[in-house]
Amino acid sequence: MSALAEIREAPGLDAYLAELEDRLELAVGTYRGVVSEVGAEALAAGGKRLRPLLVYLSSPPGTEPPVEAGVAVELVHLATLMHDDLIDGARLRRGRASAWSAHGPGAARSAGDYLFARAFAELSATRDRRAVAILANATLCLARGEAMQRRQRFDPDTTIEAYLERCTLKTGRLFEAACRLARGPGAFGLALGVAFQITDDILDCSGVTIETGKIAGTDLREGTPTLPLLLAAQRDDAVRAALAGGTQLEGALLRVASTGAIEESREVALAYARSARACLNGEVHRDELESLAYAVVERER
Amino acid sequence: MSALAEIREAPGLDAYLAELEDRLELAVGTYRGVVSEVGAEALAAGGKRLRPLLVYLSSPPGTEPPVEAGVAVELVHLATLMHDDLIDGARLRRGRASAWSAHGPGAARSAGDYLFARAFAELSATRDRRAVAILANATLCLARGEAMQRRQRFDPDTTIEAYLERCTLKTGRLFEAACRLARGPGAFGLALGVAFQITDDILDCSGVTIETGKIAGTDLREGTPTLPLLLAAQRDDAVRAALAGGTQLEGALLRVASTGAIEESREVALAYARSARACLNGEVHRDELESLAYAVVERER
Repeated sequence: MSALAEIREAPGLDAYLAELEDRLELAVGTYRGVVSEVGAEALAAGGKRLRPLLVYLSSPPGTEPPVEAGVAVELVHLATLMHDDLIDGARLRRGRASAWSAHGPGAARSAGDYLFARAFAELSATRDRRAVAILANATLCLARGEAMQRRQRFDPDTTIEAYLERCTLKTGRLFEAACRLARGPGAFGLALGVAFQITDDILDCSGVTIETGKIAGTDLREGTPTLPLLLAAQRDDAVRAALAGGTQLEGALLRVASTGAIEESREVALAYARSARACLNGEVHRDELESLAYAVVERER
Repeated sequence: MSALAEIREAPGLDAYLAELEDRLELAVGTYRGVVSEVGAEALAAGGKRLRPLLVYLSSPPGTEPPVEAGVAVELVHLATLMHDDLIDGARLRRGRASAWSAHGPGAARSAGDYLFARAFAELSATRDRRAVAILANATLCLARGEAMQRRQRFDPDTTIEAYLERCTLKTGRLFEAACRLARGPGAFGLALGVAFQITDDILDCSGVTIETGKIAGTDLREGTPTLPLLLAAQRDDAVRAALAGGTQLEGALLRVASTGAIEESREVALAYARSARACLNGEVHRDELESLAYAVVERER
């Protein structure tokens, strides 16, 4: 994601991200114990810090990008990953042992709950009344999106609309919240989040394990109906059977590619990136936000 | 808990609790789907609504007891129970199937996360800046208490101080928050919560399954060092061995009673109830709060 590296050159961003890391460390490290240990590992595992980046880039002229908002959205994101891995039984996260597999389910659960609460504690320090409502609503959407994903499992007849709604809930709303917390363009964040999620889902059927730190084909194996899998299932009965819980998975993943579903999904992701771009209107960091919209769909991990 | 029934006669309380139930239903029922279904069942299972009661009773003269605060503390409590049962693999909650055993771990996780977020969403509507910070801190303590409990598991050398700290984190802080959200006596709530937790732990070694809706002896079976078990382990090697993960559990539970640890634990709980009472000072509902302090330790379920 070298476009992202360029975006990171934006003046002032370095200082913002450095303060963000300090605050994140402080937020998880205030108390000794397993909760803090698990949180520190989740931080050290890195990640793109895309949501705080969005807070920074969408801040209007003359305002200080709120670092508390960046901390809060990143904490909610980390908490969600931790609970996701726990419930899905995923042993790896970014190529390392996930929190629950390293420390046990109880520790991962407590650490996740702690990070959620900590996010709200950070925001309450800003004395911005809207802020807590914005984050709470985004978190509610995350939980609804998770539940929706579970309901859609092994269902190859999931409609594209229902899939897109899931992307909105699971990813779009927190991206939107990042922008709105900075009093920036929420609609941009929402569309960007959907573009990001579609791209994630494409990488899961086409990416390489070593690059992404994930095992490719997880969605098919778990019966999660993503855009490329749904489009492929409409055209290929073997993919459809695999998505419905069948066992011929390896062959099916190769067939997904041969249906053209990957390219078509990429077009949909690009359309969302374009629609995100159309939401911009004279922002200070307009160039960076535009680049971000494309970086998000053009990334290879 | 007939003393509790008397307390419920306080004028205006009925209307408050009725509005609370309506708001709780609204809070979990806003969206259709499994999250809402799981939440509705958790509400329907009842419970004492002790934390909202505390919000009502500790409101100072001339102020309206904040129903949002009651909703928020109860939602955090319900979310915690849901995540507890999920991680502990507990199949029963108040004599019914627990959320995860009825709907699967994913649904219980999402519903729990949803209830947490909803609690903060409710409070953000109050436009009271302190409120979110108070609830966030209490929720942080809950997560730390959970982690501490896990660390103390199967350790019969857990000190009484460490046990009491765990009670403070796991139970005391949310009771304290209930009082503080009403701008009432936080220290009362804190001591009351510890008294409540000690009593819970006593009931687990002495209560009867049918009455409590729980299976007695869970703490010993799971190696959770509670006050009665720790005191008994100091005096009886068989209890000590059982608490450290031994297999002679049934005999050990009878021996706990014979060491006098139950009575001694009850004394400690009463001491906390008295110390809670000593924190009161001319509150409107002082009589009810005093009765509550004793009701909490004298209950049989």
